[in-house]
Amino acid sequence: MDISILSEKLNHTLATLRYGEQPSELYEPIRYIMSLGGKRIRPMLVLLSAQMFDDDIEKALLPAAGVEVFHNFTLMHDDIMDKAPLRRGQQTVHEKWNANIAILSGDVMLVRAYQLMAQAEPDKLPRVLELFSNTAAEVCEGQQLDMNFEQRTEVSIQEYIRMITLKTAVLVGFSLELGAILQGAPDEDAEHLRLFGNNIGIAFQLRDDLLDVYGDKDKFGKQVGGDILSDKKTFLMLTALEQATGEQLETIKSWRNITQNHTSEAKVQAITTVYDQLSIRQQTEQEIDRYFKEALRHLDAIAVADERKATLRGLALQLMERDS
Amino acid sequence: MDISILSEKLNHTLATLRYGEQPSELYEPIRYIMSLGGKRIRPMLVLLSAQMFDDDIEKALLPAAGVEVFHNFTLMHDDIMDKAPLRRGQQTVHEKWNANIAILSGDVMLVRAYQLMAQAEPDKLPRVLELFSNTAAEVCEGQQLDMNFEQRTEVSIQEYIRMITLKTAVLVGFSLELGAILQGAPDEDAEHLRLFGNNIGIAFQLRDDLLDVYGDKDKFGKQVGGDILSDKKTFLMLTALEQATGEQLETIKSWRNITQNHTSEAKVQAITTVYDQLSIRQQTEQEIDRYFKEALRHLDAIAVADERKATLRGLALQLMERDS
Repeated sequence: MDISILSEKLNHTLATLRYGEQPSELYEPIRYIMSLGGKRIRPMLVLLSAQMFDDDIEKALLPAAGVEVFHNFTLMHDDIMDKAPLRRGQQTVHEKWNANIAILSGDVMLVRAYQLMAQAEPDKLPRVLELFSNTAAEVCEGQQLDMNFEQRTEVSIQEYIRMITLKTAVLVGFSLELGAILQGAPDEDAEHLRLFGNNIGIAFQLRDDLLDVYGDKDKFGKQVGGDILSDKKTFLMLTALEQATGEQLETIKSWRNITQNHTSEAKVQAITTVYDQLSIRQQTEQEIDRYFKEALRHLDAIAVADERKATLRGLALQLMERDS
Repeated sequence: MDISILSEKLNHTLATLRYGEQPSELYEPIRYIMSLGGKRIRPMLVLLSAQMFDDDIEKALLPAAGVEVFHNFTLMHDDIMDKAPLRRGQQTVHEKWNANIAILSGDVMLVRAYQLMAQAEPDKLPRVLELFSNTAAEVCEGQQLDMNFEQRTEVSIQEYIRMITLKTAVLVGFSLELGAILQGAPDEDAEHLRLFGNNIGIAFQLRDDLLDVYGDKDKFGKQVGGDILSDKKTFLMLTALEQATGEQLETIKSWRNITQNHTSEAKVQAITTVYDQLSIRQQTEQEIDRYFKEALRHLDAIAVADERKATLRGLALQLMERDS
């Protein structure tokens, strides 16, 4: 099915969701965060997966919307924890209202996400709920690990991959698995879709890490080197820390916790030079490629005709900004 | 069935629940708050309702535990919002750890509550989930109203009853309805149990308001007049505000926002004197009685033998500390 038709159906579903009215302090922030936009990637993945098995995707629409509501719930609560002032260029809920309202509105969003998920057909419901609940708990585990890593000096690359798997990739994997389950796909196909999603999710996060340093500033829309300036333990930084010796290691350590504005250009420059010396860019690209190829291997293994996979494959390539 | 057998089964179920292990910052607070005890009234109500319709209450145990996990989730998040230092005489989670951990552990608790609720038999699952989700959203609405009322100068008695209905009573009503549904009880009986619970819940909260002023200090376990000292808009205060005139109204208003320690005895004394003049105690007792009788009317209407209702009736009387 054409992706623009799916997108239209999804947007109509999201636009007609009713969260509640009174007290308005509880429901206005939900409408607000849902109106900030975003690419709606996760619910689109639910629908793209669903249409692989059955052209009638109507029964996948509400659970797909549930994934987007859940995702925005995690953003609302994460923003409190991260003390983030902005989300998609607008004030975060805890800034525009206050932290208490952001906690409680977020709680109701999680309830609403479950209500949408519970619109799955009754014979699919126990499995959908079990997978959704496991995924939801894993996303929370990922957020907790992310906060823990900020306090730790040493984090291994393996630990980092585990964290981004939980925080980001499992929800991508669940979205794809959900679409398959709702359409009654065979278990092995649902499993391949989940693993396709998990690997795409990891690749996408690593690409995000890469673009922070090596991205086109205008295209990427964020300050280049933001992760370096905030001493974030990204895949690039952890790889560099593992491989740097002598002077390189000294350089990295000497810039830690230095956050003045007038030195920021020098800091990005210095760390990037070390990255270049260690070929961190190439190593990261290789790692992204490895996860991306593993993802495609699972897409290939799904027992449906190639033309049914084309739109999903196209979106994956587009997310990776690759031609093939 | 004997209440001590039900209690034993419930405690065993709660003691053997597994919430998760890693990261420990996420799961330790859940075990902590669940270990603080409490009377486990809500899950007991699920079981007492269940045993009215079928002696085999095994299939109600996990959803009953889900109600208790949900209740403790609301306590964990409410304590952050209320900046409460203590819960059941122990440090609150946000005090013992921090607010971020209390937010995220609470989120996982809500997920775990849904997982326990999802253990309902598949043919009951859609209805159980719909009722649970509606109730969960209402409890959040009640908490938001409670916070709103703190900021407002005028709150009507009707608004107050609506707030405690949402914040406290609907979960009591849901617990009783859940037990009936899980055992396949007729719809009208499930409905009567819900209304029994809603009315008991309101009566219980009004009794709590009453005991704060007129309770036996040693028996009640809280400081007498705590609500008066914190200017809480209880049923007693709102009734007094509605009926007080002239000097009485002046007295109430003059003590607002006066929170010094050395004047606290005088404040409780002054407000209680106004309450006495207006017969607030008797009026509150009448109101409690009205809700309690309405509750019993619904219990009477349930189409099972009286001996099957005896334990539930006994618990309700005990909660009200009444003999009949």
